[in-house]
Amino acid sequence: MIIILKPEATQAEIDHLTQKIKEHGLTPHLSAGQERRLIGVIGDERAIQNMPLSIFPGVESVLPVLAPYKLVSREFKRENSVIPLGDGVTIGGKQVPVMAGPCAVETQAQVLGIAKAVRSAGARLLRGGAFKPRTSPYAFQGLGEEGLQYLAEAKKITGLPVITEVVDPRDIELVAQYADVLQIGARNMQNFRLLTEVGKYHKPVLLKRGLSATIKEFLLSAEYIMSGGNHRVILCERGIRTFETMTRNTLDLAAVPLIKGLSHLPVVVDPSHATGRWDLVAPMALAAVAAGADGLLIEVHGNPEEALSDGEESLKPAKFAAMMTELRKVATAVGREI
Amino acid sequence: MIIILKPEATQAEIDHLTQKIKEHGLTPHLSAGQERRLIGVIGDERAIQNMPLSIFPGVESVLPVLAPYKLVSREFKRENSVIPLGDGVTIGGKQVPVMAGPCAVETQAQVLGIAKAVRSAGARLLRGGAFKPRTSPYAFQGLGEEGLQYLAEAKKITGLPVITEVVDPRDIELVAQYADVLQIGARNMQNFRLLTEVGKYHKPVLLKRGLSATIKEFLLSAEYIMSGGNHRVILCERGIRTFETMTRNTLDLAAVPLIKGLSHLPVVVDPSHATGRWDLVAPMALAAVAAGADGLLIEVHGNPEEALSDGEESLKPAKFAAMMTELRKVATAVGREI
Amino acid sequence: MIIILKPEATQAEIDHLTQKIKEHGLTPHLSAGQERRLIGVIGDERAIQNMPLSIFPGVESVLPVLAPYKLVSREFKRENSVIPLGDGVTIGGKQVPVMAGPCAVETQAQVLGIAKAVRSAGARLLRGGAFKPRTSPYAFQGLGEEGLQYLAEAKKITGLPVITEVVDPRDIELVAQYADVLQIGARNMQNFRLLTEVGKYHKPVLLKRGLSATIKEFLLSAEYIMSGGNHRVILCERGIRTFETMTRNTLDLAAVPLIKGLSHLPVVVDPSHATGRWDLVAPMALAAVAAGADGLLIEVHGNPEEALSDGEESLKPAKFAAMMTELRKVATAVGREI
Amino acid sequence: MIIILKPEATQAEIDHLTQKIKEHGLTPHLSAGQERRLIGVIGDERAIQNMPLSIFPGVESVLPVLAPYKLVSREFKRENSVIPLGDGVTIGGKQVPVMAGPCAVETQAQVLGIAKAVRSAGARLLRGGAFKPRTSPYAFQGLGEEGLQYLAEAKKITGLPVITEVVDPRDIELVAQYADVLQIGARNMQNFRLLTEVGKYHKPVLLKRGLSATIKEFLLSAEYIMSGGNHRVILCERGIRTFETMTRNTLDLAAVPLIKGLSHLPVVVDPSHATGRWDLVAPMALAAVAAGADGLLIEVHGNPEEALSDGEESLKPAKFAAMMTELRKVATAVGREI
Repeated sequence: MIIILKPEATQAEIDHLTQKIKEHGLTPHLSAGQERRLIGVIGDERAIQNMPLSIFPGVESVLPVLAPYKLVSREFKRENSVIPLGDGVTIGGKQVPVMAGPCAVETQAQVLGIAKAVRSAGARLLRGGAFKPRTSPYAFQGLGEEGLQYLAEAKKITGLPVITEVVDPRDIELVAQYADVLQIGARNMQNFRLLTEVGKYHKPVLLKRGLSATIKEFLLSAEYIMSGGNHRVILCERGIRTFETMTRNTLDLAAVPLIKGLSHLPVVVDPSHATGRWDLVAPMALAAVAAGADGLLIEVHGNPEEALSDGEESLKPAKFAAMMTELRKVATAVGREI
Repeated sequence: MIIILKPEATQAEIDHLTQKIKEHGLTPHLSAGQERRLIGVIGDERAIQNMPLSIFPGVESVLPVLAPYKLVSREFKRENSVIPLGDGVTIGGKQVPVMAGPCAVETQAQVLGIAKAVRSAGARLLRGGAFKPRTSPYAFQGLGEEGLQYLAEAKKITGLPVITEVVDPRDIELVAQYADVLQIGARNMQNFRLLTEVGKYHKPVLLKRGLSATIKEFLLSAEYIMSGGNHRVILCERGIRTFETMTRNTLDLAAVPLIKGLSHLPVVVDPSHATGRWDLVAPMALAAVAAGADGLLIEVHGNPEEALSDGEESLKPAKFAAMMTELRKVATAVGREI
Repeated sequence: MIIILKPEATQAEIDHLTQKIKEHGLTPHLSAGQERRLIGVIGDERAIQNMPLSIFPGVESVLPVLAPYKLVSREFKRENSVIPLGDGVTIGGKQVPVMAGPCAVETQAQVLGIAKAVRSAGARLLRGGAFKPRTSPYAFQGLGEEGLQYLAEAKKITGLPVITEVVDPRDIELVAQYADVLQIGARNMQNFRLLTEVGKYHKPVLLKRGLSATIKEFLLSAEYIMSGGNHRVILCERGIRTFETMTRNTLDLAAVPLIKGLSHLPVVVDPSHATGRWDLVAPMALAAVAAGADGLLIEVHGNPEEALSDGEESLKPAKFAAMMTELRKVATAVGREI
Repeated sequence: MIIILKPEATQAEIDHLTQKIKEHGLTPHLSAGQERRLIGVIGDERAIQNMPLSIFPGVESVLPVLAPYKLVSREFKRENSVIPLGDGVTIGGKQVPVMAGPCAVETQAQVLGIAKAVRSAGARLLRGGAFKPRTSPYAFQGLGEEGLQYLAEAKKITGLPVITEVVDPRDIELVAQYADVLQIGARNMQNFRLLTEVGKYHKPVLLKRGLSATIKEFLLSAEYIMSGGNHRVILCERGIRTFETMTRNTLDLAAVPLIKGLSHLPVVVDPSHATGRWDLVAPMALAAVAAGADGLLIEVHGNPEEALSDGEESLKPAKFAAMMTELRKVATAVGREI
């Protein structure tokens, strides 16, 4: 950490500051430039990174040197984390698993029909929501445990491992009985209690980036899960909120190679929520694989007009299958496989 | 609701669409303009507002006519809601109560000292966090119930009602025993389970706007609480996330008169979190009252350098008292009182 | 256009409104829903789209039905515009031309060296700035006409058509003598005088999206050029400003298929400015082609450390050549060619 | 400037880096922390602030110590700049001049009528646009010189100095003959040629913040003008672009005290463009004065329904006069006068 002093900082102010630094077991090192004096802090700056040093008298600004996260970083682990998701599927290696299914689980027939369709088109996991976070209290909130049972049933028949969302610490036990991968939604990326709780399980967790989360905050939320003991974390870019309103969100695809440089964790892209429009899902899925994504999360519905949630962005099974054909070509072009 | 048809929409597509509308008990009304045909939907459009009408064949776009919220709106209740907060303090009327205290409860002496100081300067409620949502898992997470007890102790001595945050549905029972006002933080504005749960209590709830929440989403989250039966909701503007990084967030002060036009609920401003800098708190507090805010939430700490959370934006008691003097003048100028 | 009336709108207010609409040669059509009355406006709404109808007494809101642009739209021209750029290169068809070169023209040797290198790697145009818009008045502002001469020299030797930026209406005449394609930079996307002036020339114009321009505004700026008579407009997505600071901008890649749905104009992507980091240029270039981009704009510099502008995001010639090899594979996978 | 090295940086890389720094006349100072080594650069870092040091081999990140602007800063000039605007009006001192008038000059009678009305309500300057930057090429673009003549006429009769916008370097000579203050609009904040040109005049320049300009960029644009020799610069906060769509822009009022801490220049607020809604203008004007604004820019129109531009946000003269009465009270409360 480097502390830049105001031009008018007094010796007493500097003494006060260096004293505080020493109290935390670190070593201050004063040096003078032409226009400013600086204090370099030697030692593990994480010991003082929550101190409000910027308001100490005589301080102009404070520049952290180290990233605030540790376990998620490439420095902590050089090679890519490859995470088994069940049924022989892994994520983080050469394979780019596609996780497909309806936004919300609606009926047993619906889930099973879609599961069979996406499996035959090449999907590796079945997605579907039983607990739905919805902006309006008057929108469909999900089937709850009944929905989980339908997913389990579909898994038994198709063999596809299941990924589904958990929204409440009180539900994790239940959801974990049915799911192969726990999903934390964008609106819960900073629901720290939920992060802490899933950190106690051994299930893989897919963590979605919050609507206005910086990449640093996103990685810190993953750090919550890993610091609890669960290292099977998958990061998911699903669009951020910007001023543009023609798409539901703005897909920040550069986050994929950027995060893969900073972290060893796999990075998945959800083009369905990122765009909110079914006609943009396929081009963004192709782009995601070209950019190096480790997996995709795609909404598929047999009859989007009747979907109880997110019909606007759901692909019909035939469109999904066509997209998978294109995806395979792009994956091959960049040395991956679907 | 108005549905604009594509120029090339066929009669079969229009029939399909009008059929669906009728199935939901509404009446479609087709009319032809010069360049487009439209379908006006007569009846309560909330019955179909979650249908993905925009993807129906032949549809170009869909324009809702009604706001998606109801109980929070001025149409539902014309006059301002005035909410009692305990100890004779009310919010939503002429009085502009200031809620002040430390970001995090740290020790009994700290809370009591600050409570006495802010009371004598004119604060009407004591704020302080016992359960702290923190971006990093390595930051101070709050004292939990011990912190609640300190707040209760300070209330007993100073008479100030207490506002404190709840972050987990499992804690509400406990927090409600100690608090006069439950606070839902910005990161939990769309933690719908938490909203639903506080909707079952009779305590006033102060709901903070999420970092990237539109005003419509903000009001929908308040609707979650009200639709559960708890009508004592206070809205809090606390800054939104933008591209500007010199301040922690961007205070959207125009939201105050805007929301007061749309809703009968009181609107409070938190200039501490909005700016993240103690030197900007007083000017923004003055501005908030000038703009019509119904209350203020201010962080005060006896020794911000040692604060375990948000020291950067905390006022010392003397600065807080000086600000209160200025605030009274501005409040008088706009016909309010502190 | 549809005008939604307030529940309390009076007959006099409605009469006033319909009178105004008729004065502009349009026909108002009043209809009553269950909760609101509406006025549908029949005729070309562009006649009144600049009237502030929302402030007329009795009006709740105003919903335009038509897009505010015309010449740029797919309705105006169904098939893709294919624009010749010189030397047999076209944009908007199967070919995806790569435009590469230094951010700023520095010396004759520099430009010529880079031109030869990018040509042999497969670039189709040479880019380079002679007039540089720089955030700081103390940064290198470009060589001016001398730079244009170096570009012309490099064109003569390599055969590559030249694209270069124009920043001032007074310079267009000069720049047009040397350039094959005129570039309007992001900061000038709403410099309407400049747009109007280039609309009078017959040169192709590459128009970059502004840092905070919506797609609607972007298309309206293109409309300025087209309405002046110059229909050879190329749109360029180059990243928008968001809250994320790890990249210089956020590349909004979904804008590519979205704009291609709305407009017949070709869409190019500039991954160099979008990310501001050379290590993210290749993955985003691959992603852009996978998403359907019609061209790429890439910064290449022989010695980025010494670059007078944007060294951070420039590729060395060897990295550029390696990227081109990968690009060809992805282009083939999606049925295009570089 | 401080350069943080990668853990794996080699001695050769460090030598290369220090060599480059010395070549620019600066002195590198290497120091080793526990986890990272740093190079502190001693000397005026502005000599190297445009070098892409972050891409040098072995460099992890680069932290500038000094602000990139100089003449606009409080370090350059401690006391507030007080700028005479004509007719005894000054800005930057105790007085808070209100600049009011129509968005666009439409007719001689219109301008004169509004000028008289705002003068009698207490406005100190007359605003009005003769050259209008409009998003659509089909919207009213202003009267040009004829509009300037109407403004001059109104000035002669009312005595109010005139502020009006200039949008093209070719028009400055003309506009400067009529105007007392030149206005640079938000869309031209980074039209660097225009900034450079107005820097050669002695007229006061009111520079509006760009829609997505950071405060640092805003100050750098002011630096363009000052570095050309014109030190009479007034900064204007007029709202930034965010995700919120219920207001035209988001007024960043905290920018007022923030900029006044960083710079000696006066700061004005334009609540009309910031909100885009006449009903929010008065509360935001009151808030601006409470927050410490040095002036206000307000749109007033005798008949907003018929306004050729921005009718939505224009106050009628009677509403303007009522607002002025309120403003005087708030100004007195904070020790200023209107």
